[in-house]
Amino acid sequence: MELLYKKIIFDELEKLEITLSESINSDIELATEVSGHIVKSGGKRIRPAICILVAKTLGYSESDLIRLASSIELLHTATLIHDDVVDESLIRRGKESIQAKWDDAHGVLVGDFVYSKAFQLMASFDNPNIIRELANATNKISEGEVLQLSMKRQSNLSEEDYFNIIDRKTAELFKVSAVTAGILCECSQPELDSLNNFATSLGLAFQIQDDILDYYGQENLTGKKVGKDFEEGKFTLPIIVSLKTMNQTNKTRLLSLFKTRKIEHFAEIIALMESEKTTEQLKTIFTHHSDECINELEKLPHNQYRDALENIVRNLDSRLT
Amino acid sequence: MELLYKKIIFDELEKLEITLSESINSDIELATEVSGHIVKSGGKRIRPAICILVAKTLGYSESDLIRLASSIELLHTATLIHDDVVDESLIRRGKESIQAKWDDAHGVLVGDFVYSKAFQLMASFDNPNIIRELANATNKISEGEVLQLSMKRQSNLSEEDYFNIIDRKTAELFKVSAVTAGILCECSQPELDSLNNFATSLGLAFQIQDDILDYYGQENLTGKKVGKDFEEGKFTLPIIVSLKTMNQTNKTRLLSLFKTRKIEHFAEIIALMESEKTTEQLKTIFTHHSDECINELEKLPHNQYRDALENIVRNLDSRLT
Repeated sequence: MELLYKKIIFDELEKLEITLSESINSDIELATEVSGHIVKSGGKRIRPAICILVAKTLGYSESDLIRLASSIELLHTATLIHDDVVDESLIRRGKESIQAKWDDAHGVLVGDFVYSKAFQLMASFDNPNIIRELANATNKISEGEVLQLSMKRQSNLSEEDYFNIIDRKTAELFKVSAVTAGILCECSQPELDSLNNFATSLGLAFQIQDDILDYYGQENLTGKKVGKDFEEGKFTLPIIVSLKTMNQTNKTRLLSLFKTRKIEHFAEIIALMESEKTTEQLKTIFTHHSDECINELEKLPHNQYRDALENIVRNLDSRLT
Repeated sequence: MELLYKKIIFDELEKLEITLSESINSDIELATEVSGHIVKSGGKRIRPAICILVAKTLGYSESDLIRLASSIELLHTATLIHDDVVDESLIRRGKESIQAKWDDAHGVLVGDFVYSKAFQLMASFDNPNIIRELANATNKISEGEVLQLSMKRQSNLSEEDYFNIIDRKTAELFKVSAVTAGILCECSQPELDSLNNFATSLGLAFQIQDDILDYYGQENLTGKKVGKDFEEGKFTLPIIVSLKTMNQTNKTRLLSLFKTRKIEHFAEIIALMESEKTTEQLKTIFTHHSDECINELEKLPHNQYRDALENIVRNLDSRLT
């Protein structure tokens, strides 16, 4: 199903692509070539779309918006490039990752190049609050990465730790996309609070959905392989929720299967999880956050842009059912 | 020989250490621990010292200065952490590097954390020109890293490429240390131009000296092992200069020895270089840049802080003779 925002802000998304391409232009050809491999490979552009839709919901129409949205997408892209080095991921957006196509050194240094381009765009704003929000978000995201790294050695992960990680790694950039758009529009503090709550909840719902689909998604619908988190040994919400109510025998069995990281055990893991009604529990947690999104959205002016934001939330939901 | 600046801005350097320690404080203990391993391990603090000395030469005394100097040192530290991942270096500032003590993932992500802390400090300035200078420098440095990477595959490096790399990788941060200090002091454009020229030349002289000492340094005086660049297969000025006038037989011999990266061939390499009077040529190039530093310094107000800047230049020179 085509998302509403792709039609409604079609022109802005086209301008975004142009700004992204121009931003990574450099005298150093290798920097342009390697960063272009990821920056120009599409992606949903969900974070810049939120930034643009929020600003347009609030009546903003000036050109600063595309620069802001571009800096956010570049920041996101830089974290993806470094994530791929750290996780030794071979595939990104359906293509070879930078570290797979070139090597780790290219991943590290071109990731830094993309970060620096994001910072240059950020620094182009005259409003210091926008720059500070973006710098603080950059820090919170990087702390989330280190927190996740520190958890890797553990044989389990609490629900609290999981939410702490996804709040930093995913929700933070959603939040700053909406809040900086709000600052650009000079909106009121209550509106900024609503934007903060809406986008944080959307980020959490987005990540929870992604983690659920990694266990329960249909590859023909999502285009994504299931079981990737399991194969990488990543504790995510489906496992955490099912372990909470599981008896000791099943728990021991599940954890020992989880450690193997072998896909032939995936079906048994799913069966063990289902005995705990995990999908129902996950749906409840997801719905809590998606309802929060809708509630907060209703505090903003009603127009087609707000409808497109609501459509993003509803679409996440529809993919789970 | 103790450098003059360590006495003259002793208090400021103590405050710098406190700000650096406080900056890397984080709720995420692993981030504080791993970044502290490098941030708190000393180093010459030459870049923040230049920033502080320039501002004090121009009569500045407000507290913003230590924050500016700290952001520059953190930016430098982040690049060192990522350099160590890329070069697989085991030692940094006389201790194990982060990637050696932990692993590449810690190097990449904690490097990003230190970058983000540098950006938070940068974003704390109200003057957008300071932020823009720092963001542009970050970009130019990262381009220098990618340029160096793109040259690695080549079997030779031109003097022009060498200067392009060290201008970006080293001189740029020296330059921005002095120029942002000048902006903080609201100094005139001619003064800013002098600061730019002085610090760029100092950065070039500093890197050239470092590269010369890597071939000709006395380990008992410098505390640094010689032959490291050779063992890493890095083309630097001593090799580039000697190849320029060398006959084909010696050139072929030198390049084939260079490719081995084996320290047992180091003495023969030095002998081949000396037949070209390489040390004299290097001294001429170095002196050109150090003279430029002194000339530009003389355009600034004369006081003990300017003397300390001159002392940094003279000290570089004395280590070569």
